[in-house]
Amino acid sequence: MNNVKKEIIKLRNTQKIAYLCSIDEEGFPQTKAVLVREHDNLSIQYFSTNTSSKRVQQFLKNPKASVYYCNKLLFKGALFTGIVEICTDHETKKRFWHAGDTQYYSLGIDDPDYCIIKFIAYKVNYYHGLNNITLSMEDF
Amino acid sequence: MNNVKKEIIKLRNTQKIAYLCSIDEEGFPQTKAVLVREHDNLSIQYFSTNTSSKRVQQFLKNPKASVYYCNKLLFKGALFTGIVEICTDHETKKRFWHAGDTQYYSLGIDDPDYCIIKFIAYKVNYYHGLNNITLSMEDF
Repeated sequence: MNNVKKEIIKLRNTQKIAYLCSIDEEGFPQTKAVLVREHDNLSIQYFSTNTSSKRVQQFLKNPKASVYYCNKLLFKGALFTGIVEICTDHETKKRFWHAGDTQYYSLGIDDPDYCIIKFIAYKVNYYHGLNNITLSMEDF
Repeated sequence: MNNVKKEIIKLRNTQKIAYLCSIDEEGFPQTKAVLVREHDNLSIQYFSTNTSSKRVQQFLKNPKASVYYCNKLLFKGALFTGIVEICTDHETKKRFWHAGDTQYYSLGIDDPDYCIIKFIAYKVNYYHGLNNITLSMEDF
């Protein structure tokens, strides 16, 4: 069990891109690559995005989500399942602001089109080759 | 428009891995990396998988799906949305059987754990940087 946890943490920490999944207004699953950024711990992960994006509008109507980290060369993957909160408050936006973000959000931290996706996982499925295990986030 | 179509076709043809998305029994979106294999055209794409897999069980209950191709270095992505049919008939399984598949399905073409996912897209969203366009598959 401890080895699996270490593998999941390593996979999360070595990937620059994750795949964030939402459900659209017609009930279809939708995936998009997002830059891996900060996390409080594996249960609470943050991503930045445009408030006006389709993804955010979908999460406001249906917060069910997943975040997938994958090393395709080694056939390893960790799929976190949980819910999303959209954070538009100054404090949260300030906490996750990066110097280079002005290229995306010209008005800076308080640009209304800049928001933070807070993803709260409740379980994670990890596989490596044919091995496959699902853990509750309470195990972390 | 023609340039966008060419870009989508090129992206699909140069990626070895796609991200197949389903919805689980509790309504959460779930993603998994899959090997890119044959397609009739961009509207009908095929993947092979284990009949016993969670993904197949989910599609049998809810056929809503998406398939995502992504060039993360170039910030390009194509997200196809549609439905899935699970094919377990001999003819389809034979059509998509590869010589090396016995390593996964020891009983060969008629191994009950070998099945084909037939994905039928009705739209595709393509982005490159900040450009974003959605096309009906009827446009192809």
